[in-house]
Amino acid sequence: MGTRRKAATKKTARKKAAPKKAPRTKSTAGKARSKKSARVRKSSAATGVERRIHATDEETIEQITVTARGIHQKIRKGTRPDLSLPVRSLSNVSYDGRRGYLEIGRQKKVRTLSVNTVKNFAQTLKMMALSKDLVSDNDFATKREAYYISKNWDETKFDEQIESDTVMDDIEALFSVNAINREQLRFYPEEHGGSVSGPLVVRDRDATGRVARIDCANFGSGAYSIPASVEDLEFETSADFVLLVETAGMFQRLQSHRFWESSNCILVEMKGVPARAVRRFVRRLADEGQLPVYAFVDCDPYGIANIYRTLKVGSGSSAHINKFFCVPTARFLGVTPQDIVDYELPTHPLKEVDTKRAKDALKNDPFFKSHLPWRKALEQLIQMGVRAEQQALAMWGLNYVIEEYLPAKLAQTDDFLP
Amino acid sequence: MGTRRKAATKKTARKKAAPKKAPRTKSTAGKARSKKSARVRKSSAATGVERRIHATDEETIEQITVTARGIHQKIRKGTRPDLSLPVRSLSNVSYDGRRGYLEIGRQKKVRTLSVNTVKNFAQTLKMMALSKDLVSDNDFATKREAYYISKNWDETKFDEQIESDTVMDDIEALFSVNAINREQLRFYPEEHGGSVSGPLVVRDRDATGRVARIDCANFGSGAYSIPASVEDLEFETSADFVLLVETAGMFQRLQSHRFWESSNCILVEMKGVPARAVRRFVRRLADEGQLPVYAFVDCDPYGIANIYRTLKVGSGSSAHINKFFCVPTARFLGVTPQDIVDYELPTHPLKEVDTKRAKDALKNDPFFKSHLPWRKALEQLIQMGVRAEQQALAMWGLNYVIEEYLPAKLAQTDDFLP
Repeated sequence: MGTRRKAATKKTARKKAAPKKAPRTKSTAGKARSKKSARVRKSSAATGVERRIHATDEETIEQITVTARGIHQKIRKGTRPDLSLPVRSLSNVSYDGRRGYLEIGRQKKVRTLSVNTVKNFAQTLKMMALSKDLVSDNDFATKREAYYISKNWDETKFDEQIESDTVMDDIEALFSVNAINREQLRFYPEEHGGSVSGPLVVRDRDATGRVARIDCANFGSGAYSIPASVEDLEFETSADFVLLVETAGMFQRLQSHRFWESSNCILVEMKGVPARAVRRFVRRLADEGQLPVYAFVDCDPYGIANIYRTLKVGSGSSAHINKFFCVPTARFLGVTPQDIVDYELPTHPLKEVDTKRAKDALKNDPFFKSHLPWRKALEQLIQMGVRAEQQALAMWGLNYVIEEYLPAKLAQTDDFLP
Repeated sequence: MGTRRKAATKKTARKKAAPKKAPRTKSTAGKARSKKSARVRKSSAATGVERRIHATDEETIEQITVTARGIHQKIRKGTRPDLSLPVRSLSNVSYDGRRGYLEIGRQKKVRTLSVNTVKNFAQTLKMMALSKDLVSDNDFATKREAYYISKNWDETKFDEQIESDTVMDDIEALFSVNAINREQLRFYPEEHGGSVSGPLVVRDRDATGRVARIDCANFGSGAYSIPASVEDLEFETSADFVLLVETAGMFQRLQSHRFWESSNCILVEMKGVPARAVRRFVRRLADEGQLPVYAFVDCDPYGIANIYRTLKVGSGSSAHINKFFCVPTARFLGVTPQDIVDYELPTHPLKEVDTKRAKDALKNDPFFKSHLPWRKALEQLIQMGVRAEQQALAMWGLNYVIEEYLPAKLAQTDDFLP
């Protein structure tokens, strides 16, 4: 069995309750598995300025250790230990156009060890210990795996994954003040998705340290799929901009007709609201490659107020990490409400939930409230009472989008919505 | 504007109602877009026998033309034209263990042109004409795009996508008797997904005819994503078997630890019930590379009776295409009901819907009914009243699955469920 399990066994052996032993455990401990204590990091000079705003693995381990030591010392002094966590709710979120993302405020909730909080407090510390092991072993756990690992934690095991996810979010918020995000704590989401095509070479190092050179211009009818953690990727590109596409179908069309070649762009498929890895991937391209980013989504309140808004300024519920996981320079190519008129697109009526979403955005969303062109566009959409999908352009011919719509739009990027 | 739209305009101009003209149509007709009337096909000698069981583009066009000509001649003779379509329902499906898939029977429904059927009849012919154009232009339409294209068909336009999808299914069933499938008619689903890692080189030709060489062993922490149509891919591999994995999380673990290298296999992520492209991709690997195929899914009625069953023998509702789109040689690695006992896995109780699904499989599914080991396994699962996910193995350590579970299983492939 590999070092990961040995480490866990050694660690938990000090506690009262030893973990249950796995069945059929053969003696494969000696089996060589190459692991490094921390990934080698290189500054990526390929596309210009290095703008990483996150901690190294060493700093992550250091922060976890400092936090744990603080708690340990309080206990030894006979005082009650506590953890001070940023409040993760919309009431603690603000938007400043100059910073360009939804930002978490200064409100904190203090979790003090007591009879009522002891289980949750212990779970938080166990989860931090797991994170430290993962960084040390250069491994990761999916959110689901982290939940199952706890099944060997006796009384502190989680009953449902929602509980372990919440503790994980708390820990992420705790360490986000030190510019450490969840991927660096080595907790990965299950799904990440997002396909990429275009003049881009990605250099990626896997868990064994081997470096792969991936040419996103050489995938035939397929594409490169963005991995769960993109922090260590290095880029080389000669593209002029990044074009983000909402649907798999539209991506397939642009990709297979090599639109990325004729327009010299990097095509990225969002698959609905883009996952964290997709947002971070594009953000790094935007920062390091100084590339403009344009979004091409359905014209409906979901495409605008969920997909595009989350891409550009992040989301309210994860304001503690928006600093890393959004693309403030993104602009909205279309489909705009005015496009529905100009291109005579086939539409569907807005449902009640759509109209409500649009009205909510106008009334409550700090991003839309601070941009007049967006307020006008949303009001126009509500007034028209219809929505249109990006694939609706197919009414004018399958490749109308490639031959007419996108070239016309890209000739006037200054007109894009903010 | 490209040849696709020109062709469509020319064709429809003969009819009474000319299509609406697209707005802002600039004169870009001369813009060169390299298109070929048909893809060059090569026999793929790389991994052994060529076993393609489908028609070439020329044969597809020929079959569409023959069908249309038959209808045209009947009309000229003054008789009512009709189309004879295989019945697509469970009552017309059979399973023969030797053939290895759920097979469509001989029942046909005859659709004769009448006052009541005239719209649907016309839509079927328009959809066939669209397919012929797509093959000629070496293009494709997603199911959604095909729906939107019809918005320019005046009275014969579809009101909802469910209508165009049904007509598409009918056409696919019609031509399946000539070994022509939907991808060859150039109608692609939106989503296809399925990531691949391992000792496999894929050669793929995009819509412009360029050939890409994709090395699935060189993706770092990312992976190759299977394209929507896999019929023209060529393979080279030195792998010993194909391992299909249900969840993105488990794929990520095996992929990032290069399990495909230590066990010399091709890893394929199914993401739940595998899409047609994934099934066809694996089927071609199994046939041409003579590779055994093993499935690793959650131990629950959905994993067994939906995911695995569809992979191995196809589905009842698409029996007309199971011949191409399933992998009859697949075997079930796990997680088996007995694994829950042997590996002391954390479980969740079976819900009512789970138990119903398992009982339905035992009672009605010709595949499970014909395999005693499966009947016993399903009965054991119902009797235990619990289910377990593949990621539940993480209770014994994150990499227990790599270091213990899979090696132990792969040492005894003869014990796999059929």
